[in-house]
Amino acid sequence: MNAVVRDIVARALAEDIGPGDVTSELAIPAAARARGVFLAKQPGVLSGLVVAEECFRQVDPSVAFRALVAEGEAFTVGTHLAEVTGPARALLSAERVALNFLQRLCGVATLTREFVDRVAGTRARIVDTRKTTPGLRLLEKRAVRAGGGHNHRFALYDGVLLKDNHIAVAGGVTAAVAAARAAAPHTLRIEVEVTSLQQLTEALAAGADVVLLDNMPLEQMEEAVAFAVGRVIVEASGGINLDNVAAVAGTGVDLISIGALTHSAKAVDISLELELES
Amino acid sequence: MNAVVRDIVARALAEDIGPGDVTSELAIPAAARARGVFLAKQPGVLSGLVVAEECFRQVDPSVAFRALVAEGEAFTVGTHLAEVTGPARALLSAERVALNFLQRLCGVATLTREFVDRVAGTRARIVDTRKTTPGLRLLEKRAVRAGGGHNHRFALYDGVLLKDNHIAVAGGVTAAVAAARAAAPHTLRIEVEVTSLQQLTEALAAGADVVLLDNMPLEQMEEAVAFAVGRVIVEASGGINLDNVAAVAGTGVDLISIGALTHSAKAVDISLELELES
Amino acid sequence: MNAVVRDIVARALAEDIGPGDVTSELAIPAAARARGVFLAKQPGVLSGLVVAEECFRQVDPSVAFRALVAEGEAFTVGTHLAEVTGPARALLSAERVALNFLQRLCGVATLTREFVDRVAGTRARIVDTRKTTPGLRLLEKRAVRAGGGHNHRFALYDGVLLKDNHIAVAGGVTAAVAAARAAAPHTLRIEVEVTSLQQLTEALAAGADVVLLDNMPLEQMEEAVAFAVGRVIVEASGGINLDNVAAVAGTGVDLISIGALTHSAKAVDISLELELES
Amino acid sequence: MNAVVRDIVARALAEDIGPGDVTSELAIPAAARARGVFLAKQPGVLSGLVVAEECFRQVDPSVAFRALVAEGEAFTVGTHLAEVTGPARALLSAERVALNFLQRLCGVATLTREFVDRVAGTRARIVDTRKTTPGLRLLEKRAVRAGGGHNHRFALYDGVLLKDNHIAVAGGVTAAVAAARAAAPHTLRIEVEVTSLQQLTEALAAGADVVLLDNMPLEQMEEAVAFAVGRVIVEASGGINLDNVAAVAGTGVDLISIGALTHSAKAVDISLELELES
Amino acid sequence: MNAVVRDIVARALAEDIGPGDVTSELAIPAAARARGVFLAKQPGVLSGLVVAEECFRQVDPSVAFRALVAEGEAFTVGTHLAEVTGPARALLSAERVALNFLQRLCGVATLTREFVDRVAGTRARIVDTRKTTPGLRLLEKRAVRAGGGHNHRFALYDGVLLKDNHIAVAGGVTAAVAAARAAAPHTLRIEVEVTSLQQLTEALAAGADVVLLDNMPLEQMEEAVAFAVGRVIVEASGGINLDNVAAVAGTGVDLISIGALTHSAKAVDISLELELES
Amino acid sequence: MNAVVRDIVARALAEDIGPGDVTSELAIPAAARARGVFLAKQPGVLSGLVVAEECFRQVDPSVAFRALVAEGEAFTVGTHLAEVTGPARALLSAERVALNFLQRLCGVATLTREFVDRVAGTRARIVDTRKTTPGLRLLEKRAVRAGGGHNHRFALYDGVLLKDNHIAVAGGVTAAVAAARAAAPHTLRIEVEVTSLQQLTEALAAGADVVLLDNMPLEQMEEAVAFAVGRVIVEASGGINLDNVAAVAGTGVDLISIGALTHSAKAVDISLELELES
Repeated sequence: MNAVVRDIVARALAEDIGPGDVTSELAIPAAARARGVFLAKQPGVLSGLVVAEECFRQVDPSVAFRALVAEGEAFTVGTHLAEVTGPARALLSAERVALNFLQRLCGVATLTREFVDRVAGTRARIVDTRKTTPGLRLLEKRAVRAGGGHNHRFALYDGVLLKDNHIAVAGGVTAAVAAARAAAPHTLRIEVEVTSLQQLTEALAAGADVVLLDNMPLEQMEEAVAFAVGRVIVEASGGINLDNVAAVAGTGVDLISIGALTHSAKAVDISLELELES
Repeated sequence: MNAVVRDIVARALAEDIGPGDVTSELAIPAAARARGVFLAKQPGVLSGLVVAEECFRQVDPSVAFRALVAEGEAFTVGTHLAEVTGPARALLSAERVALNFLQRLCGVATLTREFVDRVAGTRARIVDTRKTTPGLRLLEKRAVRAGGGHNHRFALYDGVLLKDNHIAVAGGVTAAVAAARAAAPHTLRIEVEVTSLQQLTEALAAGADVVLLDNMPLEQMEEAVAFAVGRVIVEASGGINLDNVAAVAGTGVDLISIGALTHSAKAVDISLELELES
Repeated sequence: MNAVVRDIVARALAEDIGPGDVTSELAIPAAARARGVFLAKQPGVLSGLVVAEECFRQVDPSVAFRALVAEGEAFTVGTHLAEVTGPARALLSAERVALNFLQRLCGVATLTREFVDRVAGTRARIVDTRKTTPGLRLLEKRAVRAGGGHNHRFALYDGVLLKDNHIAVAGGVTAAVAAARAAAPHTLRIEVEVTSLQQLTEALAAGADVVLLDNMPLEQMEEAVAFAVGRVIVEASGGINLDNVAAVAGTGVDLISIGALTHSAKAVDISLELELES
Repeated sequence: MNAVVRDIVARALAEDIGPGDVTSELAIPAAARARGVFLAKQPGVLSGLVVAEECFRQVDPSVAFRALVAEGEAFTVGTHLAEVTGPARALLSAERVALNFLQRLCGVATLTREFVDRVAGTRARIVDTRKTTPGLRLLEKRAVRAGGGHNHRFALYDGVLLKDNHIAVAGGVTAAVAAARAAAPHTLRIEVEVTSLQQLTEALAAGADVVLLDNMPLEQMEEAVAFAVGRVIVEASGGINLDNVAAVAGTGVDLISIGALTHSAKAVDISLELELES
Repeated sequence: MNAVVRDIVARALAEDIGPGDVTSELAIPAAARARGVFLAKQPGVLSGLVVAEECFRQVDPSVAFRALVAEGEAFTVGTHLAEVTGPARALLSAERVALNFLQRLCGVATLTREFVDRVAGTRARIVDTRKTTPGLRLLEKRAVRAGGGHNHRFALYDGVLLKDNHIAVAGGVTAAVAAARAAAPHTLRIEVEVTSLQQLTEALAAGADVVLLDNMPLEQMEEAVAFAVGRVIVEASGGINLDNVAAVAGTGVDLISIGALTHSAKAVDISLELELES
Repeated sequence: MNAVVRDIVARALAEDIGPGDVTSELAIPAAARARGVFLAKQPGVLSGLVVAEECFRQVDPSVAFRALVAEGEAFTVGTHLAEVTGPARALLSAERVALNFLQRLCGVATLTREFVDRVAGTRARIVDTRKTTPGLRLLEKRAVRAGGGHNHRFALYDGVLLKDNHIAVAGGVTAAVAAARAAAPHTLRIEVEVTSLQQLTEALAAGADVVLLDNMPLEQMEEAVAFAVGRVIVEASGGINLDNVAAVAGTGVDLISIGALTHSAKAVDISLELELES
């Protein structure tokens, strides 16, 4: 397991447990053991059981956890997603944090799957953005993949993306691309955000590898695609939702990036049902 | 500023910037300065400008940040929420993280305000839950207050709440409350989740200070309120949304807790518009 | 084991071992194994063997540790408190830190037990304060429980206690209580420190849940108890020692809080006697 | 300020404040300012005002702190030790942690001074041990110096001290010293604990630089001193208290080490008296 | 300043200073002030003065530091590289760590410059590798740029490079490239290490964006360049030193990567000459 | 394993792996297993296999690692230094960091051995300095021992060494030694750097325990040795290399310290050859 994930879980547990789970320490005998099942109360696409498992493991390494649905698999209401057995106090102390992760990550995977399904049959990939929850990006990016989406750059350090504000400050598309072109590591492609065909033409002339069509009307996007696809990678972004994503994909773009996948996905309702192990 | 907030911001910046913002380092001269405005592209209730400010301050202490809207204040589309001035690279490197915090926290405050408005004129307080984003609880709890809500316990260590799973494992309401009663610190009230009038009666007899009516139908809730209000604090929870919250409040409960405030609020669309400082 | 405890132990070991235990590395062969016994050289009440065990475990997971006396149990001079077996270097490197924890925590438990014994037969509980050793609060609060005492709030975040300085700054008891009453989370009781019957009356009128009688003479305390017990929880504090604690308890207060439990307990003398394992 | 001190203070504040000081946030307006004085309620020797100052500074850098008594200076009941001015919430939130440090460190300095005074006029230095509070060693070692004592090695990494358990496991004084002698860094002296004149002779023959006479009766100690002083540095340890320390010093030893300086010093009673700044 | 740099410096200072600089505390009065100059005792290319400055700043923010030579500038023996003024203890405590960074980073920049000079006039860029000092990669990569080199990917997360071991395990060049091609983020190019013309052909057919010619004899490299340059980016690596780098560049490759830049650069001799500030 | 080593490895892995090893995740099936051998491509002296092993263990505890050459043992070209077996992804992700440590530490051990061999038959010990790689001191000091050298003080906290800058600021050798003598912990020897016989005489008169002859010509060094050996420990330092070290040792000094052991050792070429485990 990636050390980043272990650290995210450790911080979440510290936030919720801190010096102790007063309720469980008061009401539950130290020796009591329980077993429980994670129950889907809404349909969805699974992501994050390994994170939930890590929550229990960190609270008590003796907890046994068994996943019943695979990462990326769709589930229906009533599905048992996983089983967990161990000291009752540990299960109760880790329950909420495990569910907070699981509900959110399933939410991201589920919303991603909806978008992916809408563009089936087109060349377009659904990709995420950096509009993720601070601190949880690695998990949310995995949830996007679980939903069938692809990942854009992870962070500011693994991709060159010249956005509107860079272009405004650098003095135009040509200047911005030229500066990047001169010194970027050869392992990274150079992507530029454009808002007009004029900027698009400039971007290609300046040597961009990828263009992001920002908030373009569909007709303009079609023109842009006709001009650019095959020469550079073409990404569409801005104001894309479940209603219009198919039309955007229909223009022939390579990538459609959607911030809502991670910043506005609703949690999937999942509960943990515990019972005393007799 | 609370050290927890500084730490949350530091981790979010580390996640996004890591060894460096390749794009800004390539395309923006080190000496360039810019100014920008945070622009509301949707209406909402403000929360989190101090967090956004801290993002810029940590990247470069020389950045000047001026809030234009107060915590908890409502804003309309087009409102300038804050202004920021400083080295262009610093503004570009901190932009996304600052927006990620701000959009999410305004989202929580805005949704909370909607619930609060629906119960205006009743005795009911809208309260949050522990269904918060892992790692961001302190910020989200503040956003709930900005929206006019109140906070439930912060974590497992500052409140006693015997939930269904505790009761299942402890062997019933009476046993659970008695065990807690015997040793809980005197600074904490003891709250019990009940799902029936029978459990409610048991809870009061056992000495609970607060009862949580979990997923009760309205009529049953009214019976419960008639029995319990004035003797203990009464909280309603489970399946409460904008459509039914007024009816729940109409039963006379003291508190209505809603997980969606923090687990399913949509981000409010806010952008940062930068320009070169001439 | 709570992550806070693991972290406290890790820091203590880092403080003492740092880059290495020069003496053991020089004088003890890497392959040597030893066994040892923790020997009580004074009588006392046990607390903290799990912390001592964690010290050895972190230095070398292969160390075997067996507790011979239970948390909270009284022991006499010469008692074997625990046995430990493992690589000699690991035992020698962890010895001092393990003893530093154990001697201090037994000291707290032992002093607490003395106070608890003095108030046997009264309604009064002996409780601790926030006058703990910086960094060791969780362990010292557990030691108080091991000694038969109860815990007051753990920290500033899990209890509302309006003290003299709050009242001075807030402008009086009534103002302070009213402000707290208006917005405190419902899971927390509101406690107020009072120094006179007039303040006590004010506190109850303002809606305090708990009152702390600070440094009151016994007669005044009796009056206060007569007025307040049964209506609110009553705590006595200030200048209470082994000589006068029984008299204070005799007034009928519910709680007696004593800073000396944690800030001035003497260490119990305990040694670790090692021998080479043949 | 040493980074270790900053870190100790940060952890102590995190322990006590965590997500927030509920009481001050509820009862004290954000804009209120206060001033206060640290008042000695018992006589003592000062240590740790810089640590107390750091507590306030970390909570709010705008707090002004003025020390009125110097490190190592003796003070009487009623002395004003320091003054502090700033935002009232910050003063209230940092108060307890600042006092916890200050009371403890003054306690160590005061007890050390008592021992130092008893051996005035002899060649003996009073030195500390590694029996310090886990996590606070640097501060307590400074407090010993403030009291007029000297420091023994700081930790396992900056001194070679072959104790009873090393000798038991290494197979005797000669073997232990020889092993250390062969490879110890030349910057460190080699010290050996001996319990008999026979071991003392062995130690000197083996090349020890310092001997620790452990729990020796006075007459035996005198013999040991006659044999060893001038050839090696001689330290006495074990069972030394205020009653017998002068007699031990009278034997002519160079150093007297006393664990009680740090493991059993009583806190000096100090309070912070705040008032609203008008 | 990037938070990663601050953290690297903080750890280096903690490693060297820990609980305190015994020598300076003993021998230098707290009030003494000194000034000093960093003196080049060998010629070289400068890198890392900002890191040296940060060392002093962290030990004492009141230290004044003035750089006299710019990053990337060449210097001769006897050049004053920087001046520093402040509390003498702070200068003495930070001196060694500051020099350790500076000497090493100048060493890397100097060696890089030598390679860069040898390939002047060719199309080849000198690039670094991941063969950096554990923990210091960000600084060493900057030193490479100071020397006129370019950076390869920073780490495993910001570049796709299929090396011999990947190919061995994945079952050949075609399989490895195909797997990467299918799911790699579009912001990253795909690079493949090849050791023969046959593998090179395979790599291009499979869609590689960059090829690394590993340890190829010059003639074979020329053939490879003839085949691949213009179609993909071509990097040479393996066994390249100052004697043969010009010949390698002469083949027409785009990039020459050299591990020795960071794993075997010799420190440049630099001293800090201090004097008491009168 | 010392916690410092675990932490060094964890940071190195975080630096290189961060959110993930993109290449291995793309190209290598999660279930693939591999085995590999560490192969010496140059002769050398071994140090650091335990560090390499820890790299793999932290990435995946299921990796099996078997050392084939002992710490401090010399090896020839083609020697298999260790074998490793486990999940292919884990081996690939940890490979570079493990090699970066191993190559560097073998480099230090190998260079040290060369110096040690040159002074065989003399009384001189080869010792290291504080001119180590920031963050890696503990590992490099162990590598020096593996090469047959000895360690000087580890850091500023475990040795008193009055260097030229201390003497300049303190006002001369006598003043500096006297100040140190008065208060240094008795466990530490006092060492002084001298550059002339006059300073040497002063140092001995002032009570130094060790003298460091800094950059002395051989004849002067011989005079110094004649004067000082037997009275104090004598260390030579400054400008010592493989060519002149035997001559320096021939003067009769006790210690020869050499910064180049750690600041300018070349990496030993070692590779990891992996193959799929069938």
